[in-house]
Amino acid sequence: MTNSIKTIGILGGGQLGMMLAQAALKLGYRCVFLEDADNAPAALYGQVFKYDELDDFIAASDVFTLEFENTPVKTAKSLASLEHKGGLFPPTNALEVAQNRLAEKALFNELSIDTVPFMAVESLDELQTAAKTLGLPLVLKTSRGGYDGKGQFFIKTIDEIGAAWDELGGAVTGDGGLTDTPAPLIAEGFINFSREVSIIAVRAQDGDISYYPLVENHHTNGILSKTIAPAADADHLTEQAQSNIGKILSHLDYVGVLTLELFVTDSGLIANEIAPRVHNSGHWSIEGAHCSQFENHIRAVVGLPLGDTQVIKPSVMLNIIGTYSDAHLVLAHSGVHLHHYHKDERAGRKIGHITVMTDALDQTVANIEQLLS
Amino acid sequence: MTNSIKTIGILGGGQLGMMLAQAALKLGYRCVFLEDADNAPAALYGQVFKYDELDDFIAASDVFTLEFENTPVKTAKSLASLEHKGGLFPPTNALEVAQNRLAEKALFNELSIDTVPFMAVESLDELQTAAKTLGLPLVLKTSRGGYDGKGQFFIKTIDEIGAAWDELGGAVTGDGGLTDTPAPLIAEGFINFSREVSIIAVRAQDGDISYYPLVENHHTNGILSKTIAPAADADHLTEQAQSNIGKILSHLDYVGVLTLELFVTDSGLIANEIAPRVHNSGHWSIEGAHCSQFENHIRAVVGLPLGDTQVIKPSVMLNIIGTYSDAHLVLAHSGVHLHHYHKDERAGRKIGHITVMTDALDQTVANIEQLLS
Repeated sequence: MTNSIKTIGILGGGQLGMMLAQAALKLGYRCVFLEDADNAPAALYGQVFKYDELDDFIAASDVFTLEFENTPVKTAKSLASLEHKGGLFPPTNALEVAQNRLAEKALFNELSIDTVPFMAVESLDELQTAAKTLGLPLVLKTSRGGYDGKGQFFIKTIDEIGAAWDELGGAVTGDGGLTDTPAPLIAEGFINFSREVSIIAVRAQDGDISYYPLVENHHTNGILSKTIAPAADADHLTEQAQSNIGKILSHLDYVGVLTLELFVTDSGLIANEIAPRVHNSGHWSIEGAHCSQFENHIRAVVGLPLGDTQVIKPSVMLNIIGTYSDAHLVLAHSGVHLHHYHKDERAGRKIGHITVMTDALDQTVANIEQLLS
Repeated sequence: MTNSIKTIGILGGGQLGMMLAQAALKLGYRCVFLEDADNAPAALYGQVFKYDELDDFIAASDVFTLEFENTPVKTAKSLASLEHKGGLFPPTNALEVAQNRLAEKALFNELSIDTVPFMAVESLDELQTAAKTLGLPLVLKTSRGGYDGKGQFFIKTIDEIGAAWDELGGAVTGDGGLTDTPAPLIAEGFINFSREVSIIAVRAQDGDISYYPLVENHHTNGILSKTIAPAADADHLTEQAQSNIGKILSHLDYVGVLTLELFVTDSGLIANEIAPRVHNSGHWSIEGAHCSQFENHIRAVVGLPLGDTQVIKPSVMLNIIGTYSDAHLVLAHSGVHLHHYHKDERAGRKIGHITVMTDALDQTVANIEQLLS
């Protein structure tokens, strides 16, 4: 297959598509993108088609992949079924699972992967039942849509149940403007966790799987701000994490990079959610691993052997959020890699990232966090 | 200055321009290129203007640099003198020196940098005198033009002097089709050297200089085929190499990356030639150094602080010459980085490179050389 592929069609043209293209071009492949947003970062690396130019996008592509897990499943299925094309990776069943928090957690439990206790909620009554069954506090979420903390309500007391329903209940009937598809809410029991980690793995077309190390993720205002790779004191968690993501990859007959977000508790790992794509918590791998998540995803999509996921040097990734301001000042520090996404500045928006890879890691990271703040 | 620069205008659109653009885009700059060749590799990363679109190229650029040392000096000077633009880096005097082997070696000697003995040759008589003075064998070269072994004649015996003059003498009067500008030939005395090395350094606008380690270069049919970075057993040569290139950088008031090719002899280093640009022998630095030659050149051009030139892990760079054939097969090896230039295959043409960076370096390199051969 590899030799017949010249151009990879990517659903989405954000920074993830951009970094996929950076990897693909080095391997000798070109990329085109399907993206309605203007000024897509990926446009610097290949032609961008709008959704109403879908036929041209298809004609330009030899195989398909995606950088955006909320890609409409209908579109994805139509691309996957095209004869004379190389298929869509990852498979559409992975999209369906990832787009529905209830289906996702049900799959986790089916595969004996621990989750928080959860219940489907389709009415205020059911929410009250959930509060009694799961206890308070609990987190009420839409089962579709929402990211970076949006579409969630943290219910601490019984008094807040009504407000939570008022805010999110519309998603059940589809009139809340929260999602395109009406779907139940999900109530998730609260757990005490010490930190958030993620594991990224890649599965090749022949079923071969490679794992990146567990990394530790820190959020600010619900947005990933820092990833420490590899996570400290995580060796005892690695086997469980690899087992979990390995079971998901095999069950879905997955091809490409998959990310699994996890909570660390006293009794081990609790699975939070998957992203069927390259992930912000894997950006460190561009410099910090022999073969980055982006290159490994492209290798899987075009049918090449997987690359080495080993760490070259411990790294810390810091997101640039909202403004570039003095981003160039960080370059005065040694062992610092700037990734500018060429995006317009906007509060709360990820517009770049910095990977720090020095012997004086903690001190350099502290200095750069101060510069960025 | 940095904040006012958005787009870097690069003279030349080959693979060096392409890799400069890869680095520039990550730092948040865009690139445009001036290049007459069709299917320029750099076109994947920015707009390419032909020489008859020079005005448009200028309008699109905020500052200028080059990837091609035979850029016409007249064009370079006109760009360097433009008001309301950020200038041309490196400076045009570096181009003038690098384009003329006689001027280049004269500068080396002026700066007390050792060279082979050499003489200017403008006639068959002068060539015969040179053969007596310098002894045989000697190498006769055009002082302008020529690369990868072209425009050279290796004279082993007196009998070959006539043939050498017949082949290269036309360059003196300009009717040999060898160069655009008539210029004397240069006769270079023969020296015994054990190996070829090069040093790459970068000078910032504030005069700060950073050095990459000495690397060892191997040629096949006159074309660089392999670079070992850093060169083995070269610690005792580093001071001399840094002193040499440092003197050249300062003398020329240079800004950007400069490469100095050297021969290793029993009595130390002999300077061969400079390239006023990023260089094939520095490609390993993309993965093998904290900050690559390409990023450091861009940093210098836009006025940013220089990046760390330290080696992350010893590396070997292998050029892909002529055909891609089974280039993808190398990816089955661990710690291997493929750089495909998207060029048409042609015998003797550099169309990609591979950087090997593994703990089992020698064995992996041997395996990959076998695959490429």
